Formats: sequence, structure tokens, C-alpha cells
Amino acid sequence: MTDSRGREAELLRLERQYSSWGDTVHYLDPPKFFERAEGNYLYDREGTPYLDLQMWYSAASFGYANRRLNDALVGQLNRLPQLASQYLHRERVELAAAIGRLNASKFGAEGRVHFNVGGSQAIEDSLKIVRNATGKTLVFAFMGGYHGRTLAASAITSSYRYRRRYGHFADRAHFVPFPYCFRCPYDKKKEDCGMYCLQQFEKNFDTEYNSFWDPKAGESEFAAFYVEPVQGTGGYVIPPRDYFPGLKRILDERHILMVDDEIQMGFFRAGKLWSIENFGVSPDIVVFGKALTNGLNPLSGIWAREDLISPDVFPPGSTHSTFSSNTLGTAVALEVMHLVAERDYEAITTQKGAYFLTQLQALQRRFPRVIGDVDGLGLALRVEICGPDGHTPDRALTDRMFAAGLGGDLDAHGRSMGLVLDVGGYHKNTFTLAPAFDITHEEIDLAVELLEQLIRRCAPDRV
Amino acid sequence: MTDSRGREAELLRLERQYSSWGDTVHYLDPPKFFERAEGNYLYDREGTPYLDLQMWYSAASFGYANRRLNDALVGQLNRLPQLASQYLHRERVELAAAIGRLNASKFGAEGRVHFNVGGSQAIEDSLKIVRNATGKTLVFAFMGGYHGRTLAASAITSSYRYRRRYGHFADRAHFVPFPYCFRCPYDKKKEDCGMYCLQQFEKNFDTEYNSFWDPKAGESEFAAFYVEPVQGTGGYVIPPRDYFPGLKRILDERHILMVDDEIQMGFFRAGKLWSIENFGVSPDIVVFGKALTNGLNPLSGIWAREDLISPDVFPPGSTHSTFSSNTLGTAVALEVMHLVAERDYEAITTQKGAYFLTQLQALQRRFPRVIGDVDGLGLALRVEICGPDGHTPDRALTDRMFAAGLGGDLDAHGRSMGLVLDVGGYHKNTFTLAPAFDITHEEIDLAVELLEQLIRRCAPDRV
Amino acid sequence: MTDSRGREAELLRLERQYSSWGDTVHYLDPPKFFERAEGNYLYDREGTPYLDLQMWYSAASFGYANRRLNDALVGQLNRLPQLASQYLHRERVELAAAIGRLNASKFGAEGRVHFNVGGSQAIEDSLKIVRNATGKTLVFAFMGGYHGRTLAASAITSSYRYRRRYGHFADRAHFVPFPYCFRCPYDKKKEDCGMYCLQQFEKNFDTEYNSFWDPKAGESEFAAFYVEPVQGTGGYVIPPRDYFPGLKRILDERHILMVDDEIQMGFFRAGKLWSIENFGVSPDIVVFGKALTNGLNPLSGIWAREDLISPDVFPPGSTHSTFSSNTLGTAVALEVMHLVAERDYEAITTQKGAYFLTQLQALQRRFPRVIGDVDGLGLALRVEICGPDGHTPDRALTDRMFAAGLGGDLDAHGRSMGLVLDVGGYHKNTFTLAPAFDITHEEIDLAVELLEQLIRRCAPDRV
Amino acid sequence: MTDSRGREAELLRLERQYSSWGDTVHYLDPPKFFERAEGNYLYDREGTPYLDLQMWYSAASFGYANRRLNDALVGQLNRLPQLASQYLHRERVELAAAIGRLNASKFGAEGRVHFNVGGSQAIEDSLKIVRNATGKTLVFAFMGGYHGRTLAASAITSSYRYRRRYGHFADRAHFVPFPYCFRCPYDKKKEDCGMYCLQQFEKNFDTEYNSFWDPKAGESEFAAFYVEPVQGTGGYVIPPRDYFPGLKRILDERHILMVDDEIQMGFFRAGKLWSIENFGVSPDIVVFGKALTNGLNPLSGIWAREDLISPDVFPPGSTHSTFSSNTLGTAVALEVMHLVAERDYEAITTQKGAYFLTQLQALQRRFPRVIGDVDGLGLALRVEICGPDGHTPDRALTDRMFAAGLGGDLDAHGRSMGLVLDVGGYHKNTFTLAPAFDITHEEIDLAVELLEQLIRRCAPDRV
Repeated sequence: MTDSRGREAELLRLERQYSSWGDTVHYLDPPKFFERAEGNYLYDREGTPYLDLQMWYSAASFGYANRRLNDALVGQLNRLPQLASQYLHRERVELAAAIGRLNASKFGAEGRVHFNVGGSQAIEDSLKIVRNATGKTLVFAFMGGYHGRTLAASAITSSYRYRRRYGHFADRAHFVPFPYCFRCPYDKKKEDCGMYCLQQFEKNFDTEYNSFWDPKAGESEFAAFYVEPVQGTGGYVIPPRDYFPGLKRILDERHILMVDDEIQMGFFRAGKLWSIENFGVSPDIVVFGKALTNGLNPLSGIWAREDLISPDVFPPGSTHSTFSSNTLGTAVALEVMHLVAERDYEAITTQKGAYFLTQLQALQRRFPRVIGDVDGLGLALRVEICGPDGHTPDRALTDRMFAAGLGGDLDAHGRSMGLVLDVGGYHKNTFTLAPAFDITHEEIDLAVELLEQLIRRCAPDRV
Repeated sequence: MTDSRGREAELLRLERQYSSWGDTVHYLDPPKFFERAEGNYLYDREGTPYLDLQMWYSAASFGYANRRLNDALVGQLNRLPQLASQYLHRERVELAAAIGRLNASKFGAEGRVHFNVGGSQAIEDSLKIVRNATGKTLVFAFMGGYHGRTLAASAITSSYRYRRRYGHFADRAHFVPFPYCFRCPYDKKKEDCGMYCLQQFEKNFDTEYNSFWDPKAGESEFAAFYVEPVQGTGGYVIPPRDYFPGLKRILDERHILMVDDEIQMGFFRAGKLWSIENFGVSPDIVVFGKALTNGLNPLSGIWAREDLISPDVFPPGSTHSTFSSNTLGTAVALEVMHLVAERDYEAITTQKGAYFLTQLQALQRRFPRVIGDVDGLGLALRVEICGPDGHTPDRALTDRMFAAGLGGDLDAHGRSMGLVLDVGGYHKNTFTLAPAFDITHEEIDLAVELLEQLIRRCAPDRV
Repeated sequence: MTDSRGREAELLRLERQYSSWGDTVHYLDPPKFFERAEGNYLYDREGTPYLDLQMWYSAASFGYANRRLNDALVGQLNRLPQLASQYLHRERVELAAAIGRLNASKFGAEGRVHFNVGGSQAIEDSLKIVRNATGKTLVFAFMGGYHGRTLAASAITSSYRYRRRYGHFADRAHFVPFPYCFRCPYDKKKEDCGMYCLQQFEKNFDTEYNSFWDPKAGESEFAAFYVEPVQGTGGYVIPPRDYFPGLKRILDERHILMVDDEIQMGFFRAGKLWSIENFGVSPDIVVFGKALTNGLNPLSGIWAREDLISPDVFPPGSTHSTFSSNTLGTAVALEVMHLVAERDYEAITTQKGAYFLTQLQALQRRFPRVIGDVDGLGLALRVEICGPDGHTPDRALTDRMFAAGLGGDLDAHGRSMGLVLDVGGYHKNTFTLAPAFDITHEEIDLAVELLEQLIRRCAPDRV
Repeated sequence: MTDSRGREAELLRLERQYSSWGDTVHYLDPPKFFERAEGNYLYDREGTPYLDLQMWYSAASFGYANRRLNDALVGQLNRLPQLASQYLHRERVELAAAIGRLNASKFGAEGRVHFNVGGSQAIEDSLKIVRNATGKTLVFAFMGGYHGRTLAASAITSSYRYRRRYGHFADRAHFVPFPYCFRCPYDKKKEDCGMYCLQQFEKNFDTEYNSFWDPKAGESEFAAFYVEPVQGTGGYVIPPRDYFPGLKRILDERHILMVDDEIQMGFFRAGKLWSIENFGVSPDIVVFGKALTNGLNPLSGIWAREDLISPDVFPPGSTHSTFSSNTLGTAVALEVMHLVAERDYEAITTQKGAYFLTQLQALQRRFPRVIGDVDGLGLALRVEICGPDGHTPDRALTDRMFAAGLGGDLDAHGRSMGLVLDVGGYHKNTFTLAPAFDITHEEIDLAVELLEQLIRRCAPDRV
């Protein structure tokens, strides 16, 4: 034990000297090490388990060290571990076909799949498709949206902090308020707002003076609208059911494409293969990544409607990346597609999600002076930590609970345990819960108990 | 066999329907499938071996299915296959330290390492570092240079084709002629040019009217110069020894950073860990990827001088990527670092490269009406296919040889064999050879024999 | 008469062949010629007078062929008609001082004046001041705002039509709804809206996710807000009294500059030297032009607070234009400043404007099925032509009335007369009235009579 | 006298307080006042004449206070001094026709004229034409070129100083070395260079890797090349006769437009109506201003080929400016066109220019240690002040001579006189001479005498 602590101290010393701190590791001080992962749990150097409610921001939805998916990786490793992406291999082709077929049935449109690595690079590819098809560069995106951290992805991600030190962003999106009803951007009440937010968006096309539309030419200055149907980093915010159908109609009437970013919510996080399916909308382009390989490989990709991506308009050489359809990633992803063909993840995530949400609602009722809002769609759940008024964001308490969870000394029926949470939301006061799909009802109960312990420990005066 | 051919036909049918053709697969018609990879060879569905002289554009320099590196992957897979990048794990820390220590000794400067996935995203991170440090956006880059295909990377990659259909590139680099002496951009002779190209570059800072420099303010409009010390996609072009020292002096005098893109040439491809070491120059930022994991994971990264990347100037949250320091990639990369610490790859690649180059020079002497230029640095070698005059680029012949190599019916001492080549260069007439570091002298001889067969077969009238 | 008609036909033929139609002449078909101008009237080839209610979009506010100002031009013409702008002449210095002194007293801040030609170029100079002072490029501007037609001015002018065919505008403003209460962008009622539009604007700074503000750094992505206190081309829209004070507070708290575009409303059009004075707000930069020379010279200029424009921060050579402080323009402008020092134009325009507005309100009461809104501030008045419901914009009728006014056959107490109107507004259904300051009550009455004739002639079914 | 000096001191005090110093007035300390202008002379407060060899940078080529042109201004002032530009007046139509007809005969192409005010705004209009016609934004321009100081004009003007403090210029031109043979950018000798500079430019289209051209698509990334046939601010640099024909051929082959900026050199400054005529080249767009009104009004304009500017492609509303075709400016400009139709300015400027150049060459022979180069085309002449080696630019001496000329105490055959020079050139060591076209041989002799006095006074050690 002392040894392991000593090793970790030495590692921290090295890290302080040689590692960039520019990523998100140092949001926690000191940073946290983990040594092992399995199922729903991470383990620290002392073997303490941490129930994980974030699963690598939904990248490892099928469970850490999922045997079947790990085996798929090893299988490919032993056969064709490397291959230049200009040559074909079976899994790549079958993977594209599996996704293409599903989307054809879901969206009633033929299309094609293009692979890359990392969600941001798939976003970049989608931007190329959009620009190529429309001849335009400007896009809409949502306030609270997150699409990655390459420069072009940062230009369409609302947070100004991501751009501030990096010069002028010539392609900065126009950001539109998301229907975040708990904190309505227009201070309306969900019950009687009449979709005021949609009306406001549509108003932008009233006259040329609104700046977006030339009625004479029947043309918009904007090529596409980038959407996360359920916001990820924005705090797992779930829109009202009618929002996206209304939005799509407005966009269609103005010949503006809808690009559906499913990087975080795709692969059943929100109860459907693609979260947009919850709203009965057929996007023009879908971007995906993360859980595609259960986190074993950064493979990502886009699906686009045939007319946007056919070889005629998006010919050989249009884009490229060394690792774009790497054999290891495609092999794992193909196994994921087999898995989701075999098991009814729609039912699984919907049922477990409903149970989890019910428990969270009960928790909220017990702690109305701590929890302002809970909501969920599938196994994407949110718990918003607020002040005693149930509305004012309480970021400080959120941070304390997050850190306490990582302390590893909660009581899981007599056993020491930690809780791994993820903090998101406009006010950084929201726990965005993305448990593994194999989580059991008992583990959900345990999770809620541990959350309660965190509340009692961190906000004793409000319980 | 019939079965395997039928399976491939079915795959091709699927591919035609569901796969984007936007990458480089369809440069060849029909595309080529491979099923297995090991050592220096790829194998097709019939088990025919293809001697590989491109090793995934130098991503698999340590050999396909390298046992030791594959084992490192499996080891991590069984222990900690997934972990959100906001938490630490041992290999990540040790990998950064290993690179940081080496660079400190090589460049005499402390610095830090930042990880990401895919070379382009590392380039994006370097652009952030540059913009943050200088407050400027514009950069120089080389004609013939290649830095990736995200939008920002395409803006600094010379080929207009990569930008043409994607709108306006507000950050387009100013592209400077590379010292490609076989085809001197200034029509000079290497022997007596007096480094005219460097003089021309320096002239740009003579007066404010040259457009780059404000003598009154002592400030350049340009923040950095992105260089590949040996051009990759540009055709493995090797500059004269004095070029980069001269360039660095000019840049230093104008406070312009040098960003060294080692994505393709790093990890001993050109005889040194970093190809820039061949020229005795210390860059301000180094970008690397590809061979870092021997192609088993898209891990990439940058190293930057402490003053550019210290937590003071590049604080937590500056950039991020879900898979940026993924556990599988860092575990393999750490094993690569162990490997290169144990074996003297500098000697290996230099010695084998010299032998290979000698054989290629002999080949050129035998076929002066086909080969215009051969050159090499370490195991980065080039063969430029030209017309009978030994200078006019012959792209058609290059393409025929490339396709014939993939036919798989060359004669390797009685055994059928293919040859996998990569075509690059300004005129697409250059074979850029990047053999595995474990290639033997016998295999080098075999490679040259196979090249000769290709020449005899594809240009019978010129032999 | 026949001769003059023949001459005009010949001119029209020439015009069709050799003139660009890219300006606004061909909005009317056939275009209209005028031959003489004096006082409140333009005269066509047959000597028919046209009462002018637009006075060159407020450029000739002091009356056509104003004797005193014309004499000032001739005086300079005989003395110093030309001089390179790098040398000084008396009138330039005195003009800058006159404006600087007035603004110091009005805004309680020292500042300086910089001249140029054409309103757009003054806007360009103001953009230089803003960028230089803030290190930022992005600005806010109003929907319905108009700041000129250079590329940079078009980027901050809302109408997309002005940008559509001219490529990507990397510096496109973010456009904010103007408080146009007759057609509230938020569908609120003026009486009880609680300045909802201001609240909405302020909300943009709530969190970093709104895209405009980094709370950690206390910094906005936006450098300035360009405002027309009373919109010009937008339709002489007059905001509620409390809007601008509230806006300025929000901007001050976020260190965002306010640039006040007075090109059309300056020089007493809206009852004060600067229209912003109506709202008790001190802008950081004022841009002016048009009436500065009563239309005799395109002289324009900006005034900026000392800390933004002092020689320390805006040193020699910062900008330049051959004609920037031309002797003819400055001589006339100086005479304008003398004129406004001598006569109480604040009282004149306020009093006459009130009378005119009263008559227009009476007209509206007589024709509620034609006029939807009338409003005015000083001698900037608006008449919005609507459908029978008094709200739906009726652009077709507006166009008919406009054209009929130019027919020259209205009845001015027995004499043939025309009426020159200007059409503006988001829906192109607004007559923006800018009569000469010397207009008499009798002429105002005549104007209203002529308007009534136009209504009766063009909308006989609605009177 | 004392009074006038006191008045000037008071004006200087005012100027220090209320005037922006951001223009070029304060290049001289203290700034210089003038009170009267006539013919070839400016007069200071004491009545001392200054022979003017710069004529407002060629804006007043027809002489200060030219009676005929002044009368044209007064005529229009008394008739139609103001008129909104959306209405027509005779002079505007006739002016466009006069220019259109001349260009049709000169360039063998029908076209149209579009007016604006200020050279920069005409440049902006030309950029709109270029972008509209090509769908592209990027342009080439020359190192040493000057096209104005709006943001877009600064983006295509080489001097970085004009951009440095104003943010990121997303449309920055690619700047190409001008054939400035006295200081050849490639260090070649005019006699045997074989137009190396043209070859270098053409090389840029060799392969896609040069960054400008996609051979597959047959398309350039660049839409146009902005040229001053004789550089103005760049130092009245005259290219070899064959340069522009060669350049036009290269551009035509790549479908790149040539925009000919004649703002400074147009109207016979360089011996022809347009300086490009000297080289037998037909540009696609011509931009003009300055001498168009002899400096009496900032009227400017462009002429473009019919297919680029016809109402079909550049319809009503494409651009606009309040003063764009103002009546005063067009009246004067029309009179200028009459003047040049009546008098043979081609012969006048060519003959006088030849005489002036001969005298300057003699001067150079007398002072080889002061004058490095003299050259001239028409009445655009250059004298490059160098060190004793006849080549090293001597800016300090140039400045001293400039200032001494403004001292007003040179000896003009017994009478006190000043000499007004303009300094330009890449090294700010060139007197760019633009005398009035009415200058006599006696005045040319006087000018050379005064220059000699300046040399003797400011460089006594080198005479």
C-alpha cells in the first residue's frame, strides 16, 4: 500500500514536470489515478471500487472490459492489426453497411458512412459535406451545444472560453437558445409557452433585415444547423417532444441542413440507437463516435444522405485520415453492431432509465433544497444541484459532491466505495449520469444511496 | 477460393452502396482487400504475400503484428482498457515523461507533452499553442507540405485540391517553396545556388512592402512556420543539410516559431527519433503520431517548449478530446518508447537505409530512362519515375507500376508475391518507400528485384 | 418640351448601355431625372416642382442650394480648392475643434475627430479604432441597422442581401433585435414588456454557454455594439426612451464599446445634434457624415474618446484617404457648424417635427385602413403603410404611392407638383420622412395634403 | 505676419487637442499649413510660393484652381448641387458614356461604369464584382502595391503596417514581387533575366502542391490579380514593357481576372489615359478616382467588362453609396472628359515627361553619390535617393530634403520659394514626382534647380 502510494506520488511528480496541463485532468487537485476497470467499476491503487455513473462520458456504455468486445479487438489484433486505410478489409465494409441499413430503415433514406477518428474529426468531415453541398460556410448551433475542440468544432461549440485565446474564428456559428425548459431562455412556462422558442427562431426568416434570409433569392446565409437532440456537455438537457419536428420543418422550408451530433447520445444512451429518433425527425447527416467501439478505439464516423455524399458529389480524395477506418476499431465496432442487433437495447435502456429516473425523483423529493431538477431519457439522466430555493445553481456544492465521490470512502453496505460522477451543464451544477447499460436495479439503488450519502456529507445543513 | 472471391465480390457490392468514397480507397479500381498482416507482409484472401514498402505510410514501422507491441495492447486491454481522459493512469504519465526527457536532451530545452488522437488533431493543438503564445493566426508552411485534413490542417497544407470545395479558408497559410533540389523551384543548381531559396525567404522581411514584416514595430504578420524536415506526402524530399539551420536563424530573428511536424518522419523513419535532428535544429514545437503506437491506436501528441505550454499559459481546459490519452494507446506507445530505448534504431535505420539507397542507385543506373531520382535519409527513401529524359515526371507509368504491384503475381524466387508501394510527390510520380525497420538485406534485395520486375513489365520499351 | 423629352430619351439610351445598374437607380422603371434643386424642391425637365420629403436621405437637411453653404464652397474654391491631406488648412482644424468641443460638453469626455469621405469609410475608421483598442474583431449590431456598403460595413449591416453574392464574411456581426415596438420582435406590448428585449440581450452574458462571455476571464468575445439610435434605412424606428440607457449599462459592465452611427440621424435630423442625445447616453465613438456638408461634399468623420484615439494609441499613419479632409468639404462643414451655432436647430426641428407628427397622426386617423403607424423624433418621421388591418405591411401600395409621387401631377392648390418620398423599413412599407429644416408649416400642410392625394389615388378602395 | 504666425500657432494648439493624428499629417513635425493654391503652386501664410511636384498625389493633375474645372463646379452648384443618387442627372449619364466609349475603343470590349466616392470604395466595388463573378474571395496583389485603406483594401495592399493593429484579415491577398528592376526581387539583371519573375509566377500553377491551382478541376484558388501598372505609393516603379502582356496571358489561361488600379496613374499621369495602355493589355476591370475631378470632389469609379457587370449579374441594389454619383463630382468629371477630348494629353505628358526625365538623368549624373535611380513614364517620375554607392537606400537624406523643401527658403532666381515633394517607395527613399500637366519647360528646369539646391544643402559631403 505504501509502495503504491509512493509510486503514485512519483508519477504525480513526473506529471507535474512533463505533462501538459491543458486538458481536463487538473480540474481536480490533485488529479485522480485509476488502475483497473471492469463492468460498472473503476478501481484505484488500493483496489477500492468506484461505481461509475459516467462511463467515460458515455464512451463505454457496454461496460468496462466487456468480454465480447475485448475479444473482438484481440481477434483482429491477431489477424489484421494494421492496414493502410486506402485498402479495404471486411469489417470496415460490413460496419458501414450495418449502419447504412439501419439508417435507411429509420430515416427512410439511403445514405453512406464515412469513418474517421475522434468525434471532432467526424464533425470536420460533416462540415466538409455541408460546405460542399451548399457552397456556404455559416451554420447555426445551440447555446449549450458541444461538438468538439478542433478549431472548426470550437467555432460551432457555444462556449466562448474554448475560443478566447485562439484568435479570430471566421466561421463562428450563430448560437440559438436550446429549449432548456427548467431554465427557459425566454422565461416562459413549458405549459403555455406555445413553443415560443421555435417561433423566435422562425422569426429570423421574416425579412432580410433579420440578417439570415434573402427573401428575393429565397436563400439563407446559413447552410446547416448542428444539433445535439439531447445536450451532452450542456447538461443532458432534454427538449420537449415537439421541438425538433418543428425545427426541422423550419429548416426544410429554408433549405438548411440538419446535422445530428450523436457522438455522446448515440448508441442507445438516450433510449434509441440515435437520440433524434425520440423526436421522429430524420436528420440529413448523423455524426457518431464514442460508444461505437465501447471506448476501445477512437473510431468515429458520419452517415449522410446519398445526395450529399454520393461519389458524384463527394468523390475519392475528398477527405482522409491515416487511421480513419483502422482495422482494430472497425472490428470492435462491427461487434458492437452485432451486439445491438441481438439484444434489445431500446427496451433495456428505456426500462432501466425509467427506474433510475423514478429513484432520482424520489431523491429530489427527499432533498428539495439540494436538487432542483431531475430528468432522463433512456439512460441519459440529469440531476441539477441547486440552492435551497430549488433553482439557483449551486456549483460549489456540486464540486464538493464530485470530489467526495472520488474520495472512495462511501459506505456500500459495509464496503468502502467511491462514486464517479460527471459534472456538466450551463452552470456546472448538473450531474450528467451515463451508467453502463448492464447496470442492475440493485446497482441503481446503490447509486442513489451513494448520491444521498454525498448530499448528507456535503450539504448537512440542507438535508 | 471461389468462396473467398465471392465473399469479396459481395463486400464490394456492399461497399459500393453504403461506404463513402470520399477517402482514398477508390484511387484504385477496384479497391484492394487484405486479410492478414505480419512482419513486412500483407496477405490477400488467397494467402498471397505482399512485400510492403510503405508500412501504412510509416505508421507501422516496427512491423505488422509486432509481438511485443501487440502484447502491450492486450495487457492494457485486460487491466484498464478504458478510462475517461480526465483521470490519470500510469502509462500516460510515463510516456509523457519519456518523450519529455528525450527532447530535453536533444533540444536542450524543457517542455511538456500533450496527447490527442489523429495527427490532424495534434496539429490543431499545436495551432492553439501557437495562437495562444503569439496572439496571431497566420503561419507559413511549405509547398508540398502535408499536415492533415481537418479544416485548419487543410489551411496549412499546400494542396489547393484539399480546400477547393470547402469554402473560404480564412487562415490559409502562406506557402513557401521547399528546397526540392531535384526540381529546384528557382531552377538553380544545388552546387552553386548559395541557398538562393533561403535568401528569397529572408528577402520577405526587407521592407514592410513585402507584406510580412513591420520594421517599425519589429513584428511579423506570421506567427509560425510549419515544417516537415523531410516532406512526406510531398515525396520524401530531403533538403540540403544547411537549409533548416538557416531557416531557423531567420525565424528566430523575426520571433517566428518553428513547428516541426514529425507525424510521418518521426520515430526513426529518417534515421533519427525526429527527422529534424538530422539538421541540428531545435524546433519550438514537435508534432507526432503514426508510429508512436505502431499503428495500433491513433494516439498522437505534441511536445512544446515550457514557455509555450506551461500551466501558466496553457491552463487546464485549454483543449480536450475524449480519447486524447486513451489507456490502450498510451500503453502501446510506452512500450514503443521502451523498445527504442533498448535497440539502437538510429544505427539500424541508418545502416539499412544506406544499403537500400545503394541498391536503388544501382537500379537507377540500370534504368536511367525510367528512374529520374533516388534519394534517402534513414529508411525514408524515394524513387522518382520519369520519362526517358530522366526528368519529366511520368505519372502514368507510376500508376501502372503501383497497380501491377498489387496484382500479386510477381515472381519472388518462384513464389507469387505482390509489392505494396505508396505514390506521392508533387507530380504523383514518386514511390515513397517506408519499409519496416526489421526488413533484412535479403528483403531489400527482393524489394529491388520486384521493382525491377515492375519496371520491365510496365515500361518494356524503356529498359 | 419635346426637345427636353428627346434629350432624356437619349440619356436613357446611353444609361442603358454604359451605366452599371448595380446601384439603386433602377429600383424605379424607368429611372427618374431631375434638373434643378432649390430649397425644399427638386425640378424635372419641364420645371415641375417636387416637394421633397427625403432630402437626399437627410444629407441635404439645410435645404437644396442653401445660399450660405454654397457660398462657403465657392469661397474655398477660389482660395484653396485642393490640398494634399498630409498638409493642414485652417478650416479642417477649426471644424475638428468645433465638433470636439460640442461633444466634450455633451458627453463629458475629451475626444478627437478623424475625417474621411463617405459614411462607410468613416465606419471603417471606427472599426479600426475598435479593433486597435480591444484587440477583438467581432461586434454586435442591430437587426434593421444600416452602416454602409463597403465589405466591412456590409458585415455589420443586417441585410443578408447585401452579403449574399460576395463570399464569406469572416467578421459578420451578431445581430440583435431592435426595440421596434410597433412590431415587437418578441411579440410583447410596450406597456408591460418590462424591457424584455434588454433582458434578453443581457441574458447572453449569463454563462459561457451563451457563446458571448467567458465569466472566468471576465471577457466578451465581442468588442463593440454598433447602433443607430433611431434606425435609418430600417424605417426611422424610434426606440423607447429607456432602451439605450439600459443597453449602455450592460455594455459598460462587459467592457463593450458603443459606436453611435449618426450618419443619417446626426445634425439635428432627430431633434438633437446627435440622435443619441435624446436618450441621455454617452457613446464611445460617434460616426457622422451626410448633412455635415449639406450634401455638397462626401466629407465624413468620427469622434472618439481620447483614450481610444489619442496619438499614443492611434499614431500617425493609422489610416488615410486621399480626400479625407479635403478643403472644399471642410470649408462647407465649418460653415454648417457656424450655422448650427447661430440658429437653435434643436428647437426648430423639435417644434416643426411635433407639428408634422400631429398632422400625420390626424392623417392616420382619417385612413386607418392604409396607415398602420406614424411616429417621429425631431424631423425624422415615419408613416407605415399597412393593409386594412392596420398592421400587415402593404409593400405594393407603398410602391404605388412612391411612384405616383414621382409622376409630378399631384394638385398643389391648382399647380402641378410631385412628391419625393423615400421608402424604407424591414418590410419596405415605410415612408421615412426627412424634410428640410426650413420647411414651413404651410409646406407641412401641403405635404400631408399630397400624401392624402396619393392615398386616395392608389388605394381608392380603402379610403 | 506676426498675426498670421500667431493664428497658425493657435490652430496648431487646437489641432493637438481635437484632431486625430491617425492620418499622415504628423509625419512632419510640426505639420505644415497652406493657405492658397493656384496652378503649380501652393502658398503659405506669408504668400511664399511652393512649386508643387506632387499635385496631391496626382489628384490635381490639371493644376490647382483650374479655371475651367472650377467653373464647372460652380455651374452645377448653381443648378443642381444635390440629388439623391437613386435619381438620374445628365452629367452622370454622359460621364459614364464618355468613359465607356473610350474604354470600348481602347480595350475592344463593351463595359459599364459604376461610381462611388474615394478610391478605396471603388476598390471595394471591384471586389464585389470579382467575388460575384467568380464565387471566390482570394486575390493576388503586388508587393509594393497600394489600393487603399478600408479594411478590404488594406487586405490587398502589401504593407503589413496597415493591418498590424486591426485584427485578422481573412481575405489577405497573396503578394507577388513586382518587376522592380532597379532592385530586382530575384537579384537578376534586366538585360538577361528572361522575365524570371514571370516564370516564377507561372510556376505557381505547375502542380496542386504549389497551393494555387487544382489541375484536376482546372481551377485556381485565386479570383483576380490586382495591379497598378506603374506602382504609386510603391515609388512610381515602371515595369519592363513585356511584363504585363506575359502576366495577362498567364492569368487568362487560369481564368483569373486582372483588376487594373488606375487611381493614381489614370488620367494621363503615365502618358496615357490609363497607364496599362502603355503595355498593350486589356484589363477586365479598371478602377479610377483622384484626377477624375482634378481633386474637386472624391468621385471615383470602376469600369468593368459587360459580362462582369451587366444588369443580369450585377442587378439593382448590388452596391450603393449616398454620394456615389453626386452631381458636383460628376459635373466636374464630365468637364475633365471634355478637356481630355480637346487637348492631346498623351502628347503633352509624354513630351514634358521626356524632357523632365532627361533633366533628372543629367542631375543623377551630376550627383551619382546621392541619386541611385531616375525613371519616368509620362509625367510620373521617380528619383531614388541612395547612399554613395548609388544603391543603398538613404531614407534619412530623403527626409531631410523633403523637410527642407517645405522650409520655403530655396532660391528661385532671387525669389524665396519652397518645393513640395512626395516621398514613397519600398524604402521611403524615393521622390515620386507628379507635376501638373501645365508645367512649363522653364518650371521643369526650376524644379531640377531646386532639387539640386536641396541636395547641396542636405548632403554637402556628397556633392
